[in-house]
Amino acid sequence: MSTESKQNFQPDYLIDFTIEVFISFGIPKEHATLAARILALSDIRGIDSHGVARLYSYVGLLSEGLINPNPKVSIIREKKSVATVDGDNGLGLVVGHFANEMAMDKANKYGSGWISVCNSNHYGIAGYYSLEALKRDMIGWSMTNTTKLVAPLWGAERMLGTNPISIAFPGWNEPPVVIDLATSTAAYGKIEIAKRHQEEVPSGWITDKDGGLSTHPEDMINGGALLPLGSTRALGGHKGYALASMVDILTAVLSGANWGPFVPPFALRQEIPSRSVGKGIGHFFGAMEIDGFMEVDVFKKRIDEWVSVMRNTKPAKGTDGVLIPGEPEHLEEIKRKKEGIPLNASVIADLKAISKQTGIPFSEH
Amino acid sequence: MSTESKQNFQPDYLIDFTIEVFISFGIPKEHATLAARILALSDIRGIDSHGVARLYSYVGLLSEGLINPNPKVSIIREKKSVATVDGDNGLGLVVGHFANEMAMDKANKYGSGWISVCNSNHYGIAGYYSLEALKRDMIGWSMTNTTKLVAPLWGAERMLGTNPISIAFPGWNEPPVVIDLATSTAAYGKIEIAKRHQEEVPSGWITDKDGGLSTHPEDMINGGALLPLGSTRALGGHKGYALASMVDILTAVLSGANWGPFVPPFALRQEIPSRSVGKGIGHFFGAMEIDGFMEVDVFKKRIDEWVSVMRNTKPAKGTDGVLIPGEPEHLEEIKRKKEGIPLNASVIADLKAISKQTGIPFSEH
Repeated sequence: MSTESKQNFQPDYLIDFTIEVFISFGIPKEHATLAARILALSDIRGIDSHGVARLYSYVGLLSEGLINPNPKVSIIREKKSVATVDGDNGLGLVVGHFANEMAMDKANKYGSGWISVCNSNHYGIAGYYSLEALKRDMIGWSMTNTTKLVAPLWGAERMLGTNPISIAFPGWNEPPVVIDLATSTAAYGKIEIAKRHQEEVPSGWITDKDGGLSTHPEDMINGGALLPLGSTRALGGHKGYALASMVDILTAVLSGANWGPFVPPFALRQEIPSRSVGKGIGHFFGAMEIDGFMEVDVFKKRIDEWVSVMRNTKPAKGTDGVLIPGEPEHLEEIKRKKEGIPLNASVIADLKAISKQTGIPFSEH
Repeated sequence: MSTESKQNFQPDYLIDFTIEVFISFGIPKEHATLAARILALSDIRGIDSHGVARLYSYVGLLSEGLINPNPKVSIIREKKSVATVDGDNGLGLVVGHFANEMAMDKANKYGSGWISVCNSNHYGIAGYYSLEALKRDMIGWSMTNTTKLVAPLWGAERMLGTNPISIAFPGWNEPPVVIDLATSTAAYGKIEIAKRHQEEVPSGWITDKDGGLSTHPEDMINGGALLPLGSTRALGGHKGYALASMVDILTAVLSGANWGPFVPPFALRQEIPSRSVGKGIGHFFGAMEIDGFMEVDVFKKRIDEWVSVMRNTKPAKGTDGVLIPGEPEHLEEIKRKKEGIPLNASVIADLKAISKQTGIPFSEH
């Protein structure tokens, strides 16, 4: 995508730095370690936008006292396999981890577990949580709502977040099938990059402030919106809007969190919503024990066969053929664990600024 | 969409006819009534493709003895809130109804219930099942896999069905939010209609037999495929493919049904898959008791507020503004319950052919 020069860092170096930074804000070591590892996993899997590049935003919110560094994550209502959890305004990475554990513990006891979470903050990549379930031979689900960026189909206002959905299924010899997708057509980061490079974006990604299709990134940035997956009515934009709505309701209407245009910002520079309709942002986690449906080994071997059949689809002319959901991230993981995580100059500058603010050393080697 | 002349029928007339037709194939009256009501609900909600228009296909399969008219729908494996159900090769409408009931009974006992179903057939509209859950103050989920029509992104073969996802949330004064979407960009019926009218289709709906984008419906019909929601890589076609994969795995890999390109046909004229990898087609049902998460009335009022805020989004220029998922079907339901169900000449001809075959009278009044 970008031609900017990058510098490689070992994951452990970034993790250790991140842990110390979090600890310097009063976050307990156990929580700091968890959060640092989730950010690093994002970088390792090639999802650069949700890794250590986000540390600067977290530090901004922690510096202003907008995030509780030592939350007590607790169940506020439950019935056997389901519960609502209050994240006590902790780091989303910490709240998310513990709520997801609760879903898996319920699955262990009741076959499945489903947790809707309020009073949380930005939780990193949705895929971290669904991948955790694989360690316990479960199918993992994860969703979160996020700050408004997306217009519902036929709307001219940002009303919903990019609200991602993730679900993961374990394979036997094959890597897992990991679905992790935002319900918008494109990510906001891509609009910012196009603007920086003074390039147009494909028609179907964004609208201007009147809700009209545009290919000029500044039209979106100046009061326009991202389009939901499907883009236009003809191509199914009502479906992406419906999926974003599903995520918003399961994560926030059901938990008592803020929903739709009232979701609080995940960085200081963002607009504060006009009113509050609940507590913090919302997540939704699910876990299902495979063994409750089918022998675990039989299921994993069926997944392998499914993967093999899909991968062997006749390729479309001019392409390298069909990929399996999660496969590009899996290949990136193998590569980056060996070669390190490439960070661009602006992320390195942010980390240096954090180093200066906190006194935690950060060097480019 | 179409300018074909239509004739209106009262829902009860079509239901009574359908019940008698099913009974004539040895289907017990209770099952026949259920199935007829599900087909009629589809017509009433304006989803013409999945209503009485499908009776001809069901009759074809029943006539050939390919569907068991009196199935014993049974749980073959379970752990508290989750189970796998074998549909005994019954009508999907009957199997689906009973499996969905099992999910709701589990939700009543364990807070949620999740059923993966094998050995079933075409189950009608996904939304019927999720709507049923609302009667019990639950959130309903429903998915099914279907006969192959869709190419995975960068593939040049039909490998997946249009695999729909439905989820429904009850409102207080507002009608429910009902999400019900196929994971393809467009429905196959629209390609057939365009071909009949000798019209082109929008770019992004279909590929030709080499996997290239096409606007000529006959290219899809002659060995091409539908595109997944998102259409192209730039607009997120990998996401629609991932969602279709999720449905395929939850409904069929997990239940022991046929998956991907091996899903059996739902009508006689369709191609028989090259091999069998399980039993019948697959469904997945979920139900969650709202009361396990939040006071039911509080949740319903929060849904009303969510609906009101979304509906009041500033409209995009040149549009009537934002609709709520399920709203068009709800408005159609009010209209058709009063005015009747409009059937076109080819559907009426099919019903007359069924009347002739079975001896059940059918008149145009």
